[in-house]
Amino acid sequence: MRDAALPIDDRGLAYGDGLFETVLVRDGQPLLWDHHMARLEMGIDRLALPWPDFEAFHALPAQCGPGLRVLKLMLTRGSGGRGYRPPEAPDLRWRWTDSPFEPSPGRWLEGVAVRCCELRLGIQPRLAGIKHLARLENVLARQECQHDSIAEGLLCDSQGHLVEATAMNLVWRREGRLETPLLDRCGVSGTLLSALDEIVEFDWVRVGLDTLLAADAAWLINSVQGVWPIRRLDDAAGVCLKQWPLESNDTFRHAAHRLLGYPLNLGD
Amino acid sequence: MRDAALPIDDRGLAYGDGLFETVLVRDGQPLLWDHHMARLEMGIDRLALPWPDFEAFHALPAQCGPGLRVLKLMLTRGSGGRGYRPPEAPDLRWRWTDSPFEPSPGRWLEGVAVRCCELRLGIQPRLAGIKHLARLENVLARQECQHDSIAEGLLCDSQGHLVEATAMNLVWRREGRLETPLLDRCGVSGTLLSALDEIVEFDWVRVGLDTLLAADAAWLINSVQGVWPIRRLDDAAGVCLKQWPLESNDTFRHAAHRLLGYPLNLGD
Repeated sequence: MRDAALPIDDRGLAYGDGLFETVLVRDGQPLLWDHHMARLEMGIDRLALPWPDFEAFHALPAQCGPGLRVLKLMLTRGSGGRGYRPPEAPDLRWRWTDSPFEPSPGRWLEGVAVRCCELRLGIQPRLAGIKHLARLENVLARQECQHDSIAEGLLCDSQGHLVEATAMNLVWRREGRLETPLLDRCGVSGTLLSALDEIVEFDWVRVGLDTLLAADAAWLINSVQGVWPIRRLDDAAGVCLKQWPLESNDTFRHAAHRLLGYPLNLGD
Repeated sequence: MRDAALPIDDRGLAYGDGLFETVLVRDGQPLLWDHHMARLEMGIDRLALPWPDFEAFHALPAQCGPGLRVLKLMLTRGSGGRGYRPPEAPDLRWRWTDSPFEPSPGRWLEGVAVRCCELRLGIQPRLAGIKHLARLENVLARQECQHDSIAEGLLCDSQGHLVEATAMNLVWRREGRLETPLLDRCGVSGTLLSALDEIVEFDWVRVGLDTLLAADAAWLINSVQGVWPIRRLDDAAGVCLKQWPLESNDTFRHAAHRLLGYPLNLGD
């Protein structure tokens, strides 16, 4: 149902017992739809939810308004069960909404400043990769970067390994190779990252901040915002750790923006 | 508001960005109310929520029906913000509901069987202790113990330290001392545990399963169910690790049940 309220006993609200997807839609055409549905399927499998009506989901993008929109689809285990214990035959509940979206070309072209978060992500392989509703870590991490000059917060896990930004994946280039953190113990498996993984070669790595500081270039990416080159990285106290020069021919961003139908150059 | 629905953009639903309390109420009188409100305050502080109208909360138990009830109070950061980023001046939303409750005297007196969960809790000091809405780990852990013969699932953290059961705290007696796991890195600080901490002496410990297996007696406790002695502990595959005999004079259970107004003996 579109925009409909949820009852107070919905398990998505009570426990974060559900999933969501946030999809870029251009004139009724979804971008990276197959990747969004694949991640949703992975989440359904991990949470042991019953199979939803995917046909109904496939019909949603066409119902979005004209122009550039963000379609948000939420799927919860519905109501019932005894406390945390899920009902044996859950009656899934889903909702969707769409809203207009304007990307930030300034961030594509001039890059962004990013701050390391103090918060470390807990290691939880059972929830790693999927886009579940229990995202309070992301909220607390984002709270650390309230200043408008900081575009995103960078997150490590509780053992100090790089993972992602609060709402974006992290990619960098080092010694000519593209590297990105493994997302098997925490973090979200972004759909733009998955789509890029099919056309460029990533080294999936478990490394600390030092490796990123040795990179020649670094980017934050997601399927709605596109690619933001990281211009400056600060520590949690706001002290600059590293600055990267802008690259005149950012082939990585070009590859990603082709997937999203975003312009490749300023004048486009 | 009582039982009212929540809009789809509520941050409690979207991200687990909120808190809850589940309070035992007998004929309109709440049990351990001050401890519930203290934990709620701790959560408000950790999530940096604005101060809610506690006077309105204090008036809720009297509005519950007669007899034994469970009052559930939920407090969310409301709507708004940009993605994970909270609004600068959140407009808190709260809801409550109450339902009849029947405890399980059979479990008080005969004890319960408990299974070790395969899931390990992620270490997240920023969320440890508080009763936030992002409880998907608890749901997945509870899913591992669907069989009716298993009353609860026992949880360790990602480093193998004992923490709690999915919805109850864990206490044991070893060499004449009461021990209970530290809750500073994950788990929920139970209100019955907090109340007991004022009248009995606990050793707060960071230990593995071996220490529990060396205990003379062990209990699961919470402010609604009271105290369940653990009769048997199985590993995640269902193999029995330990059986404890029932204690004829369970002074620990008596102390806890006095706090909840539960009967101390079978015939009471």
